[in-house]
Amino acid sequence: MELKQFSVAVVGYGNVGQCVVEAIQQSADMRLAGIVEVPQLVETLKQNVKAIPLVADPLDLGEIDVAILAVNSLAVPKIAPTYLKRGINTVDPYDIHGDSALKLKKHLDKLAKEYGCVSIIAAGWDPGTDSIIRTIFEIITPEGITNVNFGPGMSMGHTVVVKGIKGVKDAISITVPLGMGIHKRMVYVELYDGYDLENISRTIKDNQYFINDETHVFSVKNVKELIDMGHGVRIERKGVAGKTHNQRLEFNMSITNPAATGQVLVSAARASLKQRPGCYSLPEIPPLDFIYGDREQLLHRLI
Amino acid sequence: MELKQFSVAVVGYGNVGQCVVEAIQQSADMRLAGIVEVPQLVETLKQNVKAIPLVADPLDLGEIDVAILAVNSLAVPKIAPTYLKRGINTVDPYDIHGDSALKLKKHLDKLAKEYGCVSIIAAGWDPGTDSIIRTIFEIITPEGITNVNFGPGMSMGHTVVVKGIKGVKDAISITVPLGMGIHKRMVYVELYDGYDLENISRTIKDNQYFINDETHVFSVKNVKELIDMGHGVRIERKGVAGKTHNQRLEFNMSITNPAATGQVLVSAARASLKQRPGCYSLPEIPPLDFIYGDREQLLHRLI
Repeated sequence: MELKQFSVAVVGYGNVGQCVVEAIQQSADMRLAGIVEVPQLVETLKQNVKAIPLVADPLDLGEIDVAILAVNSLAVPKIAPTYLKRGINTVDPYDIHGDSALKLKKHLDKLAKEYGCVSIIAAGWDPGTDSIIRTIFEIITPEGITNVNFGPGMSMGHTVVVKGIKGVKDAISITVPLGMGIHKRMVYVELYDGYDLENISRTIKDNQYFINDETHVFSVKNVKELIDMGHGVRIERKGVAGKTHNQRLEFNMSITNPAATGQVLVSAARASLKQRPGCYSLPEIPPLDFIYGDREQLLHRLI
Repeated sequence: MELKQFSVAVVGYGNVGQCVVEAIQQSADMRLAGIVEVPQLVETLKQNVKAIPLVADPLDLGEIDVAILAVNSLAVPKIAPTYLKRGINTVDPYDIHGDSALKLKKHLDKLAKEYGCVSIIAAGWDPGTDSIIRTIFEIITPEGITNVNFGPGMSMGHTVVVKGIKGVKDAISITVPLGMGIHKRMVYVELYDGYDLENISRTIKDNQYFINDETHVFSVKNVKELIDMGHGVRIERKGVAGKTHNQRLEFNMSITNPAATGQVLVSAARASLKQRPGCYSLPEIPPLDFIYGDREQLLHRLI
């Protein structure tokens, strides 16, 4: 029986955090305990968020089953343990692939087991649901090549790099897929007076985030007018099933980035309550555990 | 450590069974114990299958960890229990959706738990990996509509119905997708002398398998010449993440039908060894459990 609502706190109220709140409000099995923000933002945000408890200290929210960490990836290793140590499950959209994710997983796994709770990392769409898709593709074709093509859509990582360059007032970097996992970068910059586009452009193209990709830099009057949260991905695999070649698999997605990330985080919060203590990435969890509803009815529809 | 090979028996040596054997031969963590066939086929098949033990009684194969049932769906409820009762895991491509699959699951679940082993049902591509895809689509967009479009490819169910009609010597029915989950049927028949295409055509179109679909019937000289095992599926969903509409998800696959089915069965055999006793459908199993390899390295690549 899933009639008892579980209690979820949202940590961070940026673009993703706002969408996490919306997804919780749409979930019959969840109760929004409240939002946790840094003290200096709490007062300002209280003007906008009147119906939801907004606190700086999660202890002020009462009993919490799961904390969804809608925060910058770099903050996750510091914030997640504070919840796990109180026996509260955590879910995060940690988006740094490879060694970094595995190191985080090992660290949180130890803590989660010690405190008898569950942590789910990298629970956005990539890494996240895309990680599950990549896994399924290898279930069907153990041999072959998978290519992941992102965009068109804003890349936060690349945008941050450009914003950090001296003379840049505001910027966005759009990722455009060229196929077979190759991308080009379209960078729009708003410059401070006295800075030269050509110099800035060269600095961007020489940066390690851009140096291997075709990159175009444009000067614009107002970057804010260009912002669209739409994003997409196309995952392709051509591979071998048994001894039979030329099996083709493809996954396409066109989404509003923070909305999809927020929803997957909320689905993962649900799944966290069904796992044994420890830290998990998405391909390590039964997909059905993410979905709300009577198990038998779900299987009837989904099998 | 997955260095110890586990022992797999293949039950049934039709199109799918042959591809299961190939997929096992490609799997470093598996040993092909042998093939089990009905007594009347064992002698004939022995001419073709010389290097592999071929028996009528699975007891003759020695120790078996998993039996892959590459048999007709209707035979699964009878055959699976004979293995489970000996503590041998079973995997099958049972392809009847809905109540029938749930009834089978309940029955095998009880047996598997009683005998301390694992049964995985509906472990082909649809039902099977497509069931996982449908589940992932609902993780990202809990509200919305999923459409499944099959083909072009042969439908065994429809083909069997046409072959059963008096006057039909041989037949195939091809499923052609029209979009939004609607299909048309292209039926090719080889008739016995003295039978009329128009009458046969009417009988086919009035059959419950065809009556709701646009159906075209053609008379051909030799059905065998038309057989191609290629098949495909396109699963589409347009739905809502949180409160944000118009999220679009799409999965496309172009496969050789028995090869993909065989490979998924073999991947599921691997997963069966990692589950607690009971009967499972594919969305109830962590996707990573299907893949061979060092867990940490797999996560490094797939997350």
